[in-house]
Amino acid sequence: MAQGNDRPTLVVLGASGDLAARLLFPALLSLEQRERLENLRVIGYARQEWTDEQFHENLRASIDMSGVHYDDKYLDRFIERIEFHGGDLSVESLRVLHSVIDGPAIFYLALPPGVFADAAETIARAGLCDESNGHRRLVIEKPFGVDPQSALALDAQLHQFWREDQIFRIDHFLGKETVQNILVFRFANRFIEPVLRAAHVDEIQITVAETLGVEGRSRYYDGIGALRDMIQNHLIQMMTFAAMEPPALWDSEMIRDHKVEVLKAVRPVDAERDAVRGQYSAGLVEGEPRIAYRAEPGVNPTSRTETYAALRLHLDTWRWEGVPILLRSGKRLGAKAHEVAYRFREPPTRLFRHTPLEHAEPNWLVFRMSPSECTELVVRTKQPGLELEARESVLRAEYTTKDDEEASAYEQLLLDVLEGDHTPFLRFDEVEWSWRIVQPVLDAWKTGAPEDYIAGGDGPAGAHRFLGTGHAWRPLVQPADD
Amino acid sequence: MAQGNDRPTLVVLGASGDLAARLLFPALLSLEQRERLENLRVIGYARQEWTDEQFHENLRASIDMSGVHYDDKYLDRFIERIEFHGGDLSVESLRVLHSVIDGPAIFYLALPPGVFADAAETIARAGLCDESNGHRRLVIEKPFGVDPQSALALDAQLHQFWREDQIFRIDHFLGKETVQNILVFRFANRFIEPVLRAAHVDEIQITVAETLGVEGRSRYYDGIGALRDMIQNHLIQMMTFAAMEPPALWDSEMIRDHKVEVLKAVRPVDAERDAVRGQYSAGLVEGEPRIAYRAEPGVNPTSRTETYAALRLHLDTWRWEGVPILLRSGKRLGAKAHEVAYRFREPPTRLFRHTPLEHAEPNWLVFRMSPSECTELVVRTKQPGLELEARESVLRAEYTTKDDEEASAYEQLLLDVLEGDHTPFLRFDEVEWSWRIVQPVLDAWKTGAPEDYIAGGDGPAGAHRFLGTGHAWRPLVQPADD
Repeated sequence: MAQGNDRPTLVVLGASGDLAARLLFPALLSLEQRERLENLRVIGYARQEWTDEQFHENLRASIDMSGVHYDDKYLDRFIERIEFHGGDLSVESLRVLHSVIDGPAIFYLALPPGVFADAAETIARAGLCDESNGHRRLVIEKPFGVDPQSALALDAQLHQFWREDQIFRIDHFLGKETVQNILVFRFANRFIEPVLRAAHVDEIQITVAETLGVEGRSRYYDGIGALRDMIQNHLIQMMTFAAMEPPALWDSEMIRDHKVEVLKAVRPVDAERDAVRGQYSAGLVEGEPRIAYRAEPGVNPTSRTETYAALRLHLDTWRWEGVPILLRSGKRLGAKAHEVAYRFREPPTRLFRHTPLEHAEPNWLVFRMSPSECTELVVRTKQPGLELEARESVLRAEYTTKDDEEASAYEQLLLDVLEGDHTPFLRFDEVEWSWRIVQPVLDAWKTGAPEDYIAGGDGPAGAHRFLGTGHAWRPLVQPADD
Repeated sequence: MAQGNDRPTLVVLGASGDLAARLLFPALLSLEQRERLENLRVIGYARQEWTDEQFHENLRASIDMSGVHYDDKYLDRFIERIEFHGGDLSVESLRVLHSVIDGPAIFYLALPPGVFADAAETIARAGLCDESNGHRRLVIEKPFGVDPQSALALDAQLHQFWREDQIFRIDHFLGKETVQNILVFRFANRFIEPVLRAAHVDEIQITVAETLGVEGRSRYYDGIGALRDMIQNHLIQMMTFAAMEPPALWDSEMIRDHKVEVLKAVRPVDAERDAVRGQYSAGLVEGEPRIAYRAEPGVNPTSRTETYAALRLHLDTWRWEGVPILLRSGKRLGAKAHEVAYRFREPPTRLFRHTPLEHAEPNWLVFRMSPSECTELVVRTKQPGLELEARESVLRAEYTTKDDEEASAYEQLLLDVLEGDHTPFLRFDEVEWSWRIVQPVLDAWKTGAPEDYIAGGDGPAGAHRFLGTGHAWRPLVQPADD
């Protein structure tokens, strides 16, 4: 074994796979161009018996395909960092890395979900989690189980060999600029934090609407569905950022403590009353004809998997008492829309009674990730003219301008792993409590079937009905998007 | 005397003067085009011995000069409404109107300030304030005295013959859309009212900065100065809108009660500590060379009149305890800027300590009337990129778009007089208490002299020094104005 040194190594397991080619390596190249990789050494590991040169050639091709912008100088420097090692996920094969790596190392499991618990164990059994020459970290991506029990089992297997602080669980939504901006906006602006509470807010809506269908993921997706694939992780995570109490410090444990506090405060869901599921039938999405979910290749033609799910949650906290938190996510909807939106209560309207102000749209604070990244405040201003009328105005801060360098979620997350910052990664208790929130719904949905909704629409009729009087989903397309 | 009928008559006294030609008649024409004059009859009254036709000809010429946009059809219809009566301000002359007017009537005194108390009395003595055939109203414009005593004397003279509810005192700033929008924005938006108070706001700045000099008003202005000409009326009025408690109803008496409450809550000003005055010397304003105030035609070459005044006020109320309210107004400054701006306190910054967020600009809520009419919120958002940095973003609602019909202040005010709505007019106690606020400063400034400031700059150095540590005037030109 080589002498320990400080040069860190990133090992990408599954280096020949889709995730690595499409997201990881392009993000690493982008960090190279920002001069953020320093002396990082990168090892690609996969079962193929490639030489370094063969791997480099494939890498250049996939980087070209990824659409990432690069300068040849940086690409060459990046390629130089990268070695390839062929091998399978057996202890014997992985033990070879033992002699190759000295110093700190990060193992990024770009592997299929069914494999990575075993891979984490094998890496450890090959002696690679030994920290005598520097830290050893493990990066894994969702799914973290398919229900509370499997999540606990997966975690128990990981924790046999890895400490919690060595594990970096990625939810790539947490690397998105807008999600981070939710905390900055809430807590760095004096005017907004005091009013983000039940006294002034009467509803929170979190939407992740997609126009895409299953897109070749049907083998994984069918039997999993929108509740597990999107709500349990991405939307519930967004809720924790939207609802958490202000932490005293910008400290990863403190922030995650506050997030878990939100999760634990969720009142047990009554699936009958507070959950709705749907499955898309054929329709037109953005003018293109799309087939029904059950007709998609790889999907069971009698599948009862939901491609749309909506939940109404309540937090039993002082801050959010009585404020419904509405989550919805679906595929093949009429428009792509990712946002967190707070609706404010009406002001005492007697002041403007018998004026058109009485009926104006209430205030909204919206953090939008898609179609554009921006922060919006929907406000009422006086309508110019001689009468006392109000109109809705949108105060908007575009998140990026053409001069801004927006980092991709993976860049952000890779850099944070390299720096050992756990803030945007899930601690196990977050995973566990998210599963506990959806468990009653998973149980209820073992029977019955989702309601059909037409592809290209705004989801099943039941998802609108269940909101009740005085509540309505925000339109997927905002007037300002035109 | 003719039989009483319901057709209202507007009598413009001083119909041959500058105010009538430049502002009143163009505003009336504009109301005609909006079909808002209904069956109003207009009488021009002045000392000239013109026929109706001669007056109409002059009117057409001055309307062309005024730049108001019109359609010939409406101009003809408007001209048809207008009669001319020649006469002076004696009881004998005015008595002629007695036989001309039946029904309700409004007397608009477009007359020099020195004349209108007597004119109001003479109109009354001519029997024209008798309401047996319909209401009789009196419209007067500032100045309402030059100090508390003269204001009280003027008002006593008016009240000999006119009831308070017959008197409409114009401060044309109150007809401005943005000033009205301050109340709409504050009280029709749930997210903002709860934070507009001392717990969250640490300073209010009200600015009326002009690039103009005395512009032919030197005879009036010299000896009057910025404190009397601008601060006592326009800026203190803007303060009442910015600081008042929310009224339960949109009711003119209730709104004015709340405004007077603000005025009465002002802690007596210590002129030594809380007031600054300046007078412009020669300089370049927007690239043009401008002479010193004392060199202006009509100005006493040894004049000690201030062309710039700044005040720091404190309100002894629960809402604004400890929040300085900074007022400034000056001529020949570097840019035109009219605005009301609230500066928010820092949030607890330990959360972002050691990040650049710690030093970002605080939040501001700004109602701007000039250079453009808009409402702005200066907020902090996350700087796109890999670090936890904030940047200042401006959330902006432009007040008017090219499709909006913005009414001029005079249109608004004339319509309100016609409709008998007192909301945008000053009740006498407002005038009185505004004078009481500035009286200690008027007294102190009887001696000493204003500090010189260079034309085209941002006012006297003393106006910056007197703010003290942690406070600074907003720049007259905002980055967004470029």
